[in-house]
Amino acid sequence: MDEQIVTLDQAMQMAIDEAYKGAAQVSPNPKVGCVILNSKGQLISKGHHKKFGGPHAEIEALQNLKHEDLIEAHVIVTLEPCAHQGKTPSCAKKLASLPIKKVTYGLMDPNPLVAGQGHQILSDAGIEVEIYRGDLTEALENVCEEFLVNFREKRIFVAMKVAQSIDGQVALSNGVSQWITGPESRMHVQKIRSYYDAVLVGYETIIKDNPSLNIRLADINKENWAVILTNQKLSEDLKVFQVRPHEKVLTVSGDLKLVLQSLYDKGLRSILVEGGAFTFSEFLRQGLVDRMHVFTAPVIMGQGKSWSQSLSYPNLEIAPRAKKIDTQVFGPDIYTSFKLK
Amino acid sequence: MDEQIVTLDQAMQMAIDEAYKGAAQVSPNPKVGCVILNSKGQLISKGHHKKFGGPHAEIEALQNLKHEDLIEAHVIVTLEPCAHQGKTPSCAKKLASLPIKKVTYGLMDPNPLVAGQGHQILSDAGIEVEIYRGDLTEALENVCEEFLVNFREKRIFVAMKVAQSIDGQVALSNGVSQWITGPESRMHVQKIRSYYDAVLVGYETIIKDNPSLNIRLADINKENWAVILTNQKLSEDLKVFQVRPHEKVLTVSGDLKLVLQSLYDKGLRSILVEGGAFTFSEFLRQGLVDRMHVFTAPVIMGQGKSWSQSLSYPNLEIAPRAKKIDTQVFGPDIYTSFKLK
Repeated sequence: MDEQIVTLDQAMQMAIDEAYKGAAQVSPNPKVGCVILNSKGQLISKGHHKKFGGPHAEIEALQNLKHEDLIEAHVIVTLEPCAHQGKTPSCAKKLASLPIKKVTYGLMDPNPLVAGQGHQILSDAGIEVEIYRGDLTEALENVCEEFLVNFREKRIFVAMKVAQSIDGQVALSNGVSQWITGPESRMHVQKIRSYYDAVLVGYETIIKDNPSLNIRLADINKENWAVILTNQKLSEDLKVFQVRPHEKVLTVSGDLKLVLQSLYDKGLRSILVEGGAFTFSEFLRQGLVDRMHVFTAPVIMGQGKSWSQSLSYPNLEIAPRAKKIDTQVFGPDIYTSFKLK
Repeated sequence: MDEQIVTLDQAMQMAIDEAYKGAAQVSPNPKVGCVILNSKGQLISKGHHKKFGGPHAEIEALQNLKHEDLIEAHVIVTLEPCAHQGKTPSCAKKLASLPIKKVTYGLMDPNPLVAGQGHQILSDAGIEVEIYRGDLTEALENVCEEFLVNFREKRIFVAMKVAQSIDGQVALSNGVSQWITGPESRMHVQKIRSYYDAVLVGYETIIKDNPSLNIRLADINKENWAVILTNQKLSEDLKVFQVRPHEKVLTVSGDLKLVLQSLYDKGLRSILVEGGAFTFSEFLRQGLVDRMHVFTAPVIMGQGKSWSQSLSYPNLEIAPRAKKIDTQVFGPDIYTSFKLK
């Protein structure tokens, strides 16, 4: 594909970028990407896990390559190749049958029962195997963060999307919140929604704004769940019911931790909290948020409703510190993504 | 200097970048940058106005060039070359004496009495002259925004620097505000301070934090003014008095518009408002801020003190819209600069 020599870090970054292409469709599997370099270190193939139940990233990357392409090749993959046969055959066994020289993988399989087994299969077959130890380790964790939380903590991954003014308000004091951010940001929100199994909003938001909460992108065909925090019966005339089967609209109430546990038990693996101010701040107050997606519009709203309205701290040391993961500009707005835990 | 052909937009962008190099020292003059391309369109020189009273940008750019370098050359400058002799000789007359082919300038001289005169001098000398009409027009206005405000509106230019949490707070409810942002941001604040003649803070800030408000940068030797909003006599033990002559510490009080007018009358041309929350929000409420420099740290502070605390709007249409000019990352923080008027 290209004459240039690719370094390991470049190859791993490409594998990470590949992995994200599967973001909308792989849940509950992790996002995984794979890059193959030939014996000269030149890129010959890329692939990613596209869809739950479909071929893994390694198999996707291998599919157009011939036996001779793979002689002394180097396979770079974001997660340890799977050892066992699940919905698809074992990737480690497949790779072990090939004339490749080396496999570098990003993270060990988080399942302690099988961790290292993919590594062992490859090593037994005489292939050089190594776990990646470069600067992209954190990026490798981020790419499958939902999966890691699901697996390690047996709970649903919680993200939050805020559209705020420069001064941190999500609505005016009278509740007006449409539209703070511009069309470019709102388009990106659609993409962010596609990363998660469900969207959650509070009762006031659903009644006041009547949002669809679905994913409206030409190239992504995914039907997400809508979860509404209320103990009231909702009118089926609301838009959330129009765009998805009724059984994919859930009303939930009570203790938020129990609510999240019940969603996990139902099979949901990730959720995006989209408002309003009270809902946001309750999730934060209880320390339930893993990731924040913040869109900041260049408007000053003054004292309205804030997504941190029920939080208060006596000193800065105990105020929750986040970690900036990504900053982008969307039209007039600024988007920043933060990790909270 | 370089074999590559430079487009007009590239040259003008370089001239703008040059202009900013004079930011700390040219007041009350405008920042101006100049780029010279040879007859083949290759970059041969750059220069900027370095210091009030010193040579203008055009003269700086010309200084190492020989007569033969300038045959058929193209001079690109951010502001119309000056027509008249002031502290330095007329740049238009100097350029008119050279074998150059063309001059492109960014903005017309804002002084209506001399606007177009530099253009005329060049044109009369048989040099092609044009005013720039590309995509950088707004950037050209920004580079000399203080000067344009001074000249057109006969008032001081007002900038504001905020160090805030993601949720728009500048202090906890108990007043604690040190340190929200990280060292990389605080270093950039020093640079921003150097752009302005003075720093202004409220009484509480000066008493509580005892800041020096000076410019602590190895490569910039500038003594700024400190302006304190109070009608009280301040103790001369405060740090603001230690780092500058006592006459460069001003205490002011009363109507903010009158305060700003009195500073302008004293010769100050730009001021940076640095807090606290009440001072910020009063300046904003009265519509006195031209430019905001916002540093956002990845921390959630909850309900503390906000820089917009005395503002409130019944609908989004009347909430002040700003325009994002620049976004940068400083360590863990995000910096965004907005134009307000």
